[in-house]
Amino acid sequence: MKKIPVIIDCDPGHDDMMALVLAYGSNKLDIRAVTTVAGNNTIENTTRNALNVLNYIGAKDVPVAKGFQDPIVRTHKAVMERMAAARRETMTEEQRKEQSKITGALAHGVTGLDGFSFPENNPKQIEPIRAVEMMAKVLRESQEKVTIIPTGPLTNVGLLIRAFPDLLPKIERISLMGGTSEFVLTRPFMEFNTLVDPEATKIVFESGVPITMYGYDVTYRVLCGVDTIDRMEALGNQTGKMAAALLRFFMERHNKNLKQLHLKDVTPIHDACAVAGVIDPSLVTESRMLHVDIETSGQYFDGATICDYAGCLGLPANVEVVYNMDTPRFLDMLVESAGNCL
Amino acid sequence: MKKIPVIIDCDPGHDDMMALVLAYGSNKLDIRAVTTVAGNNTIENTTRNALNVLNYIGAKDVPVAKGFQDPIVRTHKAVMERMAAARRETMTEEQRKEQSKITGALAHGVTGLDGFSFPENNPKQIEPIRAVEMMAKVLRESQEKVTIIPTGPLTNVGLLIRAFPDLLPKIERISLMGGTSEFVLTRPFMEFNTLVDPEATKIVFESGVPITMYGYDVTYRVLCGVDTIDRMEALGNQTGKMAAALLRFFMERHNKNLKQLHLKDVTPIHDACAVAGVIDPSLVTESRMLHVDIETSGQYFDGATICDYAGCLGLPANVEVVYNMDTPRFLDMLVESAGNCL
Amino acid sequence: MKKIPVIIDCDPGHDDMMALVLAYGSNKLDIRAVTTVAGNNTIENTTRNALNVLNYIGAKDVPVAKGFQDPIVRTHKAVMERMAAARRETMTEEQRKEQSKITGALAHGVTGLDGFSFPENNPKQIEPIRAVEMMAKVLRESQEKVTIIPTGPLTNVGLLIRAFPDLLPKIERISLMGGTSEFVLTRPFMEFNTLVDPEATKIVFESGVPITMYGYDVTYRVLCGVDTIDRMEALGNQTGKMAAALLRFFMERHNKNLKQLHLKDVTPIHDACAVAGVIDPSLVTESRMLHVDIETSGQYFDGATICDYAGCLGLPANVEVVYNMDTPRFLDMLVESAGNCL
Amino acid sequence: MKKIPVIIDCDPGHDDMMALVLAYGSNKLDIRAVTTVAGNNTIENTTRNALNVLNYIGAKDVPVAKGFQDPIVRTHKAVMERMAAARRETMTEEQRKEQSKITGALAHGVTGLDGFSFPENNPKQIEPIRAVEMMAKVLRESQEKVTIIPTGPLTNVGLLIRAFPDLLPKIERISLMGGTSEFVLTRPFMEFNTLVDPEATKIVFESGVPITMYGYDVTYRVLCGVDTIDRMEALGNQTGKMAAALLRFFMERHNKNLKQLHLKDVTPIHDACAVAGVIDPSLVTESRMLHVDIETSGQYFDGATICDYAGCLGLPANVEVVYNMDTPRFLDMLVESAGNCL
Repeated sequence: MKKIPVIIDCDPGHDDMMALVLAYGSNKLDIRAVTTVAGNNTIENTTRNALNVLNYIGAKDVPVAKGFQDPIVRTHKAVMERMAAARRETMTEEQRKEQSKITGALAHGVTGLDGFSFPENNPKQIEPIRAVEMMAKVLRESQEKVTIIPTGPLTNVGLLIRAFPDLLPKIERISLMGGTSEFVLTRPFMEFNTLVDPEATKIVFESGVPITMYGYDVTYRVLCGVDTIDRMEALGNQTGKMAAALLRFFMERHNKNLKQLHLKDVTPIHDACAVAGVIDPSLVTESRMLHVDIETSGQYFDGATICDYAGCLGLPANVEVVYNMDTPRFLDMLVESAGNCL
Repeated sequence: MKKIPVIIDCDPGHDDMMALVLAYGSNKLDIRAVTTVAGNNTIENTTRNALNVLNYIGAKDVPVAKGFQDPIVRTHKAVMERMAAARRETMTEEQRKEQSKITGALAHGVTGLDGFSFPENNPKQIEPIRAVEMMAKVLRESQEKVTIIPTGPLTNVGLLIRAFPDLLPKIERISLMGGTSEFVLTRPFMEFNTLVDPEATKIVFESGVPITMYGYDVTYRVLCGVDTIDRMEALGNQTGKMAAALLRFFMERHNKNLKQLHLKDVTPIHDACAVAGVIDPSLVTESRMLHVDIETSGQYFDGATICDYAGCLGLPANVEVVYNMDTPRFLDMLVESAGNCL
Repeated sequence: MKKIPVIIDCDPGHDDMMALVLAYGSNKLDIRAVTTVAGNNTIENTTRNALNVLNYIGAKDVPVAKGFQDPIVRTHKAVMERMAAARRETMTEEQRKEQSKITGALAHGVTGLDGFSFPENNPKQIEPIRAVEMMAKVLRESQEKVTIIPTGPLTNVGLLIRAFPDLLPKIERISLMGGTSEFVLTRPFMEFNTLVDPEATKIVFESGVPITMYGYDVTYRVLCGVDTIDRMEALGNQTGKMAAALLRFFMERHNKNLKQLHLKDVTPIHDACAVAGVIDPSLVTESRMLHVDIETSGQYFDGATICDYAGCLGLPANVEVVYNMDTPRFLDMLVESAGNCL
Repeated sequence: MKKIPVIIDCDPGHDDMMALVLAYGSNKLDIRAVTTVAGNNTIENTTRNALNVLNYIGAKDVPVAKGFQDPIVRTHKAVMERMAAARRETMTEEQRKEQSKITGALAHGVTGLDGFSFPENNPKQIEPIRAVEMMAKVLRESQEKVTIIPTGPLTNVGLLIRAFPDLLPKIERISLMGGTSEFVLTRPFMEFNTLVDPEATKIVFESGVPITMYGYDVTYRVLCGVDTIDRMEALGNQTGKMAAALLRFFMERHNKNLKQLHLKDVTPIHDACAVAGVIDPSLVTESRMLHVDIETSGQYFDGATICDYAGCLGLPANVEVVYNMDTPRFLDMLVESAGNCL
């Protein structure tokens, strides 16, 4: 069967790691490029993490292009300040220090991928062109349409849309992890990726490209437990062990937040959802076509997505919002894909 | 037992009507004044409705003072435009016309209290002083602290707090209907009263006065069904018949919205909750002390309350947010109170 | 000749002091009340200063009512933080400390009226009712219309308009010091009084009451030099000496700012302009009827007035904006009025 | 003498036409590319106009790359609506219709270059790559640093900075027409180019690239009269005639606005200033290094530049703001350059 051509735009990140493992190990996707963006960590760290993961799982031929530290309009520094202010009390003093230096450190640690030591001297190198140009190159050179899977802030995709509008017809779909419709955990409608770059998100939502949104609504429903991690480890290969170690770290970090939902020892694997839905759309068990937009100002809701689930606004639906997936099949797919890697 | 001194600040409105019936018929409250505000309808109509209801149920001695058409900073016209824009598609053409003239017409009809014809030539008159001054007068002349129960936009209460700060120590508590913490029905965090006057709401939340907030979280849980309306009618007195007729109209108007919650032939009685909690605080079965604030700008979330239920902001709790009440006892109290009126 | 009934709403302040001297000494105004507001200093200090000035100049019978520390919607603390941020580099370290504690300290010193020591044990006391209520009382009890002369932030006047709308027809005119149309000195359109309470300013501009605005356009044209101060001192009475001492202090504080205009040893007497124009409208040599509004959000221009001098907006004129006055006659009037006091 | 390598990013536009004539006819600049942007008219029209002008003056070898209709974050439609609202009353009914369809029509007519008919069947074609990519290509392939001269909204330059940050060191300077420091004509601080794309302007100001800003402060001082236009026509060549015809049209359109400044039969040639300063920096007779930023929200000042001429903000200077130029030499340079063209 013909593989589906994709670009994965990510900021690894533990769940980005699983997204890459799933994409590569599934053998269903033709990964034309992996591009990086700042988000879960600095652009230096997310890029190094992407190179490390791809090398370690055996995806040596996938080209990696580095993106940018700053969102389109705002500065990374300003974003970090908003985040620190927004989460004062859920952090320990040590976490506060981490967070003040690096966005996303609270969930992913100071390296962006704490919990596993990759071998040094990774031979895998970044491409000589930057993320946006790489995306444009892939789209231009492709015979078929290409699906873009963003699992971090939408900075690269937003810039691509504005700087290379002629290439929009070459995009099959944007299958993104981000936003939230009804699910709220800590701050209303505050999904991390949309919070980091609201203007980029606005550009994407208004682009006219078909969009599927895997937001917190689905990612906090499709949870991975200890048993799945054990199965990952039991695979015996190096990818399985790496994935298990990192997911254990991620699960530990989530125990505090998920306590509010009366959950323990489970973890969402946000970013992998957006990949899984491209591999097999039948995994999606519940979704709705809605008008979706984002707030780009305000004291509290700046960066919050608004999905018009009640049809109040009377504007055309621009996003397929995913609400649920077949969790057991999703988790099986993750384990199986890890088994297909190195 | 000594009656609890209260001021009821309202914009009747069907649920305000029930709030007044409950307050008067309970025999537990000493209603020192009823003040009016624009919200569910124009200030002319909400004031006439308040006079009509009070006269009809026999509360002839309760003084009524008229408030204002405009919110503190914004104009009524600007508020109506925001609302019309926000609800384009849930309205029929006819409703759109109603709404374009009168805020709240969608739920309460063009008079603000459609569904029952009060007798003409109501002898009850408004006081010669305005709402804010009346509130100040009541507080100043009272030996004990007085509880304020706002069931409409917080315009009057906000002005009272700013213009008469010396009287703040005379306020026992503000038990308000408004806002929402986690419950969202149509637009996220868009409770009608806070949407109409966000700046007044901000003043109230920041006042330092003890506040209990009966928002959509509780008012959409504590639902009144046909059986309760039938019991109201079966009381046989004129108040019971009037209340039953108006609640039937209100229920009909809610059937569309509540379809989203897979509910039919039930209606919230929002404003009565804020009165019931003053009469008998033990009705509240679930509440939390939280830091609550309001967004006063932004394209979509202007007027949305934010309740820091996850403790992200690390700011002191200023509001008791009510999440649930004992519904059967609440409904019994409503029927019993209606029975105690004319 | 019949005296013109006025209420002076002020935040003394050196130029407020001259406004009071002019109002009282002119013998043309019937000062029905002096009300105070925070602005040039805290409400405690501006109120004490008003009492001190009135007592010292012999205006023992003018009732003084105390206003509020906070603007209508915002907090005094938030205002101070905005100001400190907006003037980082024009302040010395010592001034920064002053400013961080007290708004307006940069121009008026830590007491709000630095440069003269008033006698202790001032017998003059504040009235038992607050500023807004006092204004309402004066308007209600007056047979004729009353002119309100606000020389500080418009908090009291905004609250009066919203809480006592029935009294609007009793207001002859609001002759205010505040705002700017074309003149910019340090920050564009940032006149101090409008910056402190933008929402109150908006309420006033939209009230429909006739308004004359003496903004920076005129107050930085009508300058007082050393000769006028010398004449003030040479009067020999205690008011002349006090006024001279305070104006010398104020002039010293202005030398830095006015250097930008290549001016030295002159000082504006902002607030007195708004009084002078009521005493003798023929002092105004240039003014225009314009549509005026205020920005209430934004990073830089929050609090900036916008006067549509080019007629772009096509909205009705609501304010007479004063651009110039007869400076020699204005200064003569100041000296003469000081001579008529104690 | 070695020519200075430049990219001209423009939206012709009458003054853009003169900027191109000056750049090409001066023989001092090596025009590596002309890129277009929507602003004075739609992207289709400004691109056609650029091709027409370049072909007509003989600049057949200068590559032209087409930019975009929409600003980076906002839509062209939203920009047009803001503009129409902002200039309600300065337009005739007919102009309103023009303006409602096309930004900038008020000054430049419905084609963006009304007043002269270019020959049909222009052989000059746009390049196959878009504006931003063309800029990146020029920078990457250049041995020396390249000066960018934007004379329209900063959309292309903003995207270049964000999508190709590695190329920033290849930019010698951005010499832009846009913004205003102290000069205000119709709406405070509302220069057309910054108003159209505030977010792009913010990116440029914060880029760290050396910037010279030729805003309204200088462009409304350096005025072209009838005599200069006559000299242009008297040159006898086709460029001179075309330029004269277009400047006559532009002058006519300015007569209304400039009446406020008591000027008649003169016209600014905004965009040519930014070119002239690159050709001969000694033309600038007055400029200051200032901290410059832009407001990106608010009701009135959204899109207004703020130049901290009073040093209030204490932030590092990032822009050389030009206040005056040697007008006679500037006008001579324009005529001479026109003479050097076809």
